[in-house]
Parts: sequence; structure tokens; C-alpha cells
Amino acid sequence: MTHPIPVPNILARRSIRKFTDQPVTPEQIDTLLRAAMAAPSARNDKPWHFVYVTERAMLDRLVAVHQNAKMLHQATLCICVCGEPGASEYWEQDCSAATENILLAATGLGLGGVWLGVHPKPDREANVREALGIPESITPLNLIAIGHPAEAKEARTQYDAGRVHAGKW
Amino acid sequence: MTHPIPVPNILARRSIRKFTDQPVTPEQIDTLLRAAMAAPSARNDKPWHFVYVTERAMLDRLVAVHQNAKMLHQATLCICVCGEPGASEYWEQDCSAATENILLAATGLGLGGVWLGVHPKPDREANVREALGIPESITPLNLIAIGHPAEAKEARTQYDAGRVHAGKW
Repeated sequence: MTHPIPVPNILARRSIRKFTDQPVTPEQIDTLLRAAMAAPSARNDKPWHFVYVTERAMLDRLVAVHQNAKMLHQATLCICVCGEPGASEYWEQDCSAATENILLAATGLGLGGVWLGVHPKPDREANVREALGIPESITPLNLIAIGHPAEAKEARTQYDAGRVHAGKW
Repeated sequence: MTHPIPVPNILARRSIRKFTDQPVTPEQIDTLLRAAMAAPSARNDKPWHFVYVTERAMLDRLVAVHQNAKMLHQATLCICVCGEPGASEYWEQDCSAATENILLAATGLGLGGVWLGVHPKPDREANVREALGIPESITPLNLIAIGHPAEAKEARTQYDAGRVHAGKW
């Protein structure tokens, strides 16, 4: 379980919303979750849980939770990253770092994905909670739609020197 | 500005708190910020700003903002990742993804770093805001202490099958 997870180019992670019907393998899912749980967390609290879905009926059902989730009709994997607010006031940050690790590891595996925000929208949280049976003590942070890319995007940064402050603001 | 930023092994990112006195170069700082601004953000809002500090006097001053920030006496770079809450309700998530990109890119460059939480602690936010001159409309999310590692840690995941839920919770 300590095989390296290389990300050949961090700039190559782009939001991919079109997918082929080729499934994501159990080994790939395992790699994505190993990457997720390699993220840092405050005090090493690890206030995260991961629900993954490959069943077509549930992927199609999740489309309805979110007005921008239509790509789940094509995606062959969805990971719902969840946090436990009672475990850490940093849960949202820790779970976001884990999410970025999943997206980068997917890129490294030749997969693509897109981060669909759920928290802090109350209606989306309720919809995801009901569909996936998530307990009240746990908050769904997002849905990540994942699959084999059916679109190609150039590597890029959106570096903007106007957002950089040297020494002081 | 489109040189790849490789991360040879995502599991190799560990929290590094001991540093040599070798400076981080301007080119390395540029690479870290290009990686940061390659992170995804909701609606591509990019609600982030980055204040970086290499001056010893300011690095030493920042030690006082946080009871666990003593390693800033050794670090040769600190990046304060800031968000604009008025720009996006997802600012904390977007800025956390950018932070993870910085930490991974640092690992890829042979540097090390550690994420020091600031938001949502009001006292830490006030201290960082005052030290770095951050305006009221902007919230400092964290400080990242960065430098050349003076400690080595094994690559690892903290994968825990108990946090994985297949199909449904």
C-alpha cells in the first residue's frame, strides 16, 4: 500500500466534465482514496469520510441534487467527500486538501474529474445526505465526478501577479 | 510560464517543521505560486491572495501569532494564503486546494513545509492581519512555513478502510 502516486504535472489538473463509458477500476479507486488520506489535517485529526458510488442508478440519482451535476450521467465514479464538524473546526480545510489530492491523483492516473460544491448550500447538503444515507453528524462537502476523459484541456496556471503581495500586503 | 510542475509522489508530502538556512529562490517561490493558482475554484472565482515573506524580521514576528509557529524562526519562506469571503462562499475550500498545491509543489521541488491554521481562530486572524497589513475584506486562512528540510520523513498514506463507504454510507 505504499506504491508512489506520481502527478506528472500539477498544472495538468483541469476540470473534466465529459467522460467515456470505460469504468474506473477498484485499484484506481483505492489509489484515489490513498491519495485523499495522505492529505494533511490540523492536529492530524483526519475529520473525513468518503462515500464512493459506481452504480449507474445512484450516479443518475445524484444528478438531481445539484443544478450543475449533469455530468454524473456520464461519470463512472463519484466520490462524496464528507467531514465531521464536531471533530475539528478545520474539517472544511482538511477535506478540501483531501479533495485536491483526489483530483491530482486522478490526473496522474489518466482520469479526469470535477469538484461539485455541496456545503455550505443547505438544499444540496440535504439532497446528498438523503441520497447517500449520510448521518446528521457528518456534512457532505462536495461530490467529485470522475471518469475517463472524453475531452482534452491544456495544462495551465491562472497565475495572476495582482494576487501576489511580497513581504506585506 | 507553462513549465510542468511534477510531484514525483503525492504520498511524499509530509509536514516538515525543521529547516536549514538555505534560502528559497525567487524562481521556487514563483513555481509555488503558479501551482497555487492552478487549483480549482467554484465558478472559477479564484477568491484568493498570497502574501509571501522571506525577510527574517517578519518571519520571526509571525512566530508570535500562533502558539505552534516556532518553526518560522527556521523557515526561510512563509506564504500566507488569504481568501475574500465576499467573493465566494466557497473561498475556504478554494484556498485550501491552493494550499495543498503549494505543499505538493514544494515537495516536488525538494522543499518542505507545514500548514499552520489561522482561520477560524479570531485571535490568530487578528494577529496575522496586523502583522501583514491585510485589509478587513480579506481573511488570512493560514500560514505555510517553507524551507529546505532538515528532517526526513517516510512517504505515507493514512488510509483507513473505516472511513470508506462503498455505494452508500
